[in-house]
Amino acid sequence: MGEFELLAKLRERLPEPGPRVRLGSGDDAAVTVPGGATATSVDAIVDGIHFRRAAASPEQIGAKALATALSDLAAMGAEAGEAYVVVGVPPDLDEDDFLALLDGMLALAAATGTALVGGDVTRAPALTLAVTVVGHAAAPELLVSRNGAEPGDVLILTGELGGAAAGLLLLERPELAAAVPGETAELLRRRQLEPRPRLRSGLGLARAGARAMIDLSDGLGGDAGHLADASGVGLRLDAAALPLAKGVAEVAVAAGRDPLELAASGGEDYELLAALPAQRLAEATVAIGEAAETTLAPVGEAVAGSGVEIRLPGGGRLKTSGFDQLAARSDRPP
Amino acid sequence: MGEFELLAKLRERLPEPGPRVRLGSGDDAAVTVPGGATATSVDAIVDGIHFRRAAASPEQIGAKALATALSDLAAMGAEAGEAYVVVGVPPDLDEDDFLALLDGMLALAAATGTALVGGDVTRAPALTLAVTVVGHAAAPELLVSRNGAEPGDVLILTGELGGAAAGLLLLERPELAAAVPGETAELLRRRQLEPRPRLRSGLGLARAGARAMIDLSDGLGGDAGHLADASGVGLRLDAAALPLAKGVAEVAVAAGRDPLELAASGGEDYELLAALPAQRLAEATVAIGEAAETTLAPVGEAVAGSGVEIRLPGGGRLKTSGFDQLAARSDRPP
Repeated sequence: MGEFELLAKLRERLPEPGPRVRLGSGDDAAVTVPGGATATSVDAIVDGIHFRRAAASPEQIGAKALATALSDLAAMGAEAGEAYVVVGVPPDLDEDDFLALLDGMLALAAATGTALVGGDVTRAPALTLAVTVVGHAAAPELLVSRNGAEPGDVLILTGELGGAAAGLLLLERPELAAAVPGETAELLRRRQLEPRPRLRSGLGLARAGARAMIDLSDGLGGDAGHLADASGVGLRLDAAALPLAKGVAEVAVAAGRDPLELAASGGEDYELLAALPAQRLAEATVAIGEAAETTLAPVGEAVAGSGVEIRLPGGGRLKTSGFDQLAARSDRPP
Repeated sequence: MGEFELLAKLRERLPEPGPRVRLGSGDDAAVTVPGGATATSVDAIVDGIHFRRAAASPEQIGAKALATALSDLAAMGAEAGEAYVVVGVPPDLDEDDFLALLDGMLALAAATGTALVGGDVTRAPALTLAVTVVGHAAAPELLVSRNGAEPGDVLILTGELGGAAAGLLLLERPELAAAVPGETAELLRRRQLEPRPRLRSGLGLARAGARAMIDLSDGLGGDAGHLADASGVGLRLDAAALPLAKGVAEVAVAAGRDPLELAASGGEDYELLAALPAQRLAEATVAIGEAAETTLAPVGEAVAGSGVEIRLPGGGRLKTSGFDQLAARSDRPP
């Protein structure tokens, strides 16, 4: 199947985009009427680096490519808008797999209100997906950068940590699944293979007055460090307050890893970490609680200084490392 | 060098973006205040498919990736705005080459008024660049799609054809260079390696009342067909009116190819083909003439019907084929 046939099949599957899109896929460019402010982010995933075709279904791969990009919009408190997708197709990816990949992406697009309105398809030596997403807000000051945290702010974390890292361990070492019930193992694997962007939580946190926010793609330790650096503050996290996903502790122990270290340094949880003025915490958690797709937990505070400390219950400090995409070995992610 | 060090080096090289960009590279997403309408397009180039590292300098590769994306904005009559770049870095691309690639892209960005405000860097088996560009217009109706041509419209072509295809022949078969002076051969190779988007011409044609426009990335025959299909008209092109770049005829003959066929089916010239109401032709060519970065030539007309005819002086028809990115063999483009 040639490029133009593939693009035609792709376009057949696209639902009608909303009123902001004046011209969708099929022309030289998509035309939109944004209004207000836009947040734009681009994210790429490559076979052997960010996923393995042997371990993930085409639907999961397509959805993951979009999810990781949308997670950046969640971290801005933006409303999901449009997506533009480049697919690099290797010689051994057949038409059915290509369309399944697209279906996975379109299912998540529909669930998040994202319109897929443009893209490019090319040959490539390994399956490659690069997704550009555009999110919207009524005004630029409603979007939350990484750089506004102030000493005294409380740190709020969405959801639970460690699930994606534990899921990765289960995919790489199937014998570890004996440490947890089958259903738990399956949930952990899906945390790795099917990340979901916290768009509603991000929007809720932005509306509740978050002054800085980031999504956890490279691990809590690394990403909290980015937020601390950008804001010019230190972050003090309370290890005992970090919610671990069910089964993470058991899988970590079975793998000879420290559960907290796994949860704090493992990437790809795609939860959000936000800094809020302390006096807004109570109203925020109530207001967000209903809108968010997951739990919210206060996990620490911003302080004068720099760097990230994760304080252990016994008084020690946890060392963590982030996930570096260039340093990543093909034997690390699934 | 890790991802974060590379990104930091990259950011150091970025000039201050204009007032539309409220938050540039370095956060979860870039924040812009578009106003009016945006045209967004994405284009990817891959080593071995769209270029060869052996034949092109890193600067040329970086600039080509941006140029092919911006060409789509030119074809909309949009003003260049922001660019977002994914670089897939293979193991053998060193830091100097990476930065040279970026410098090539930034030089073209500066020349076209494009702000590079976001991106992603990842490992990849082959050098891959995916560029998303956002262009702007005061209102969506000022942007020119492919679908507005009407019977009776005149067809205007910017610049000259065949240069990129002849340059490709020269890169693949260096002995053909004997057919033309050295300076001409060098210009043809640069037409292949250093495409330039016709942004000013596109803006001028849009302002002059172009009703449909497309850029010639896949070859005149193929791209004219896309415009004809989208507009529901036929296009009648006069082969004798097609301006060929200097040296194309000689290189084609030396290669045993028909010059017109090479010019009409060879891709990557990145010229624009526009349909204008006939009564606007005179004023348009005067008005655009001063603004455009190249020549403008009337090359045919839109007619009731469908398909593309390229009429030869003797009364025959030229057969052409377009460039299919998926069907492309690695031995076809340089």
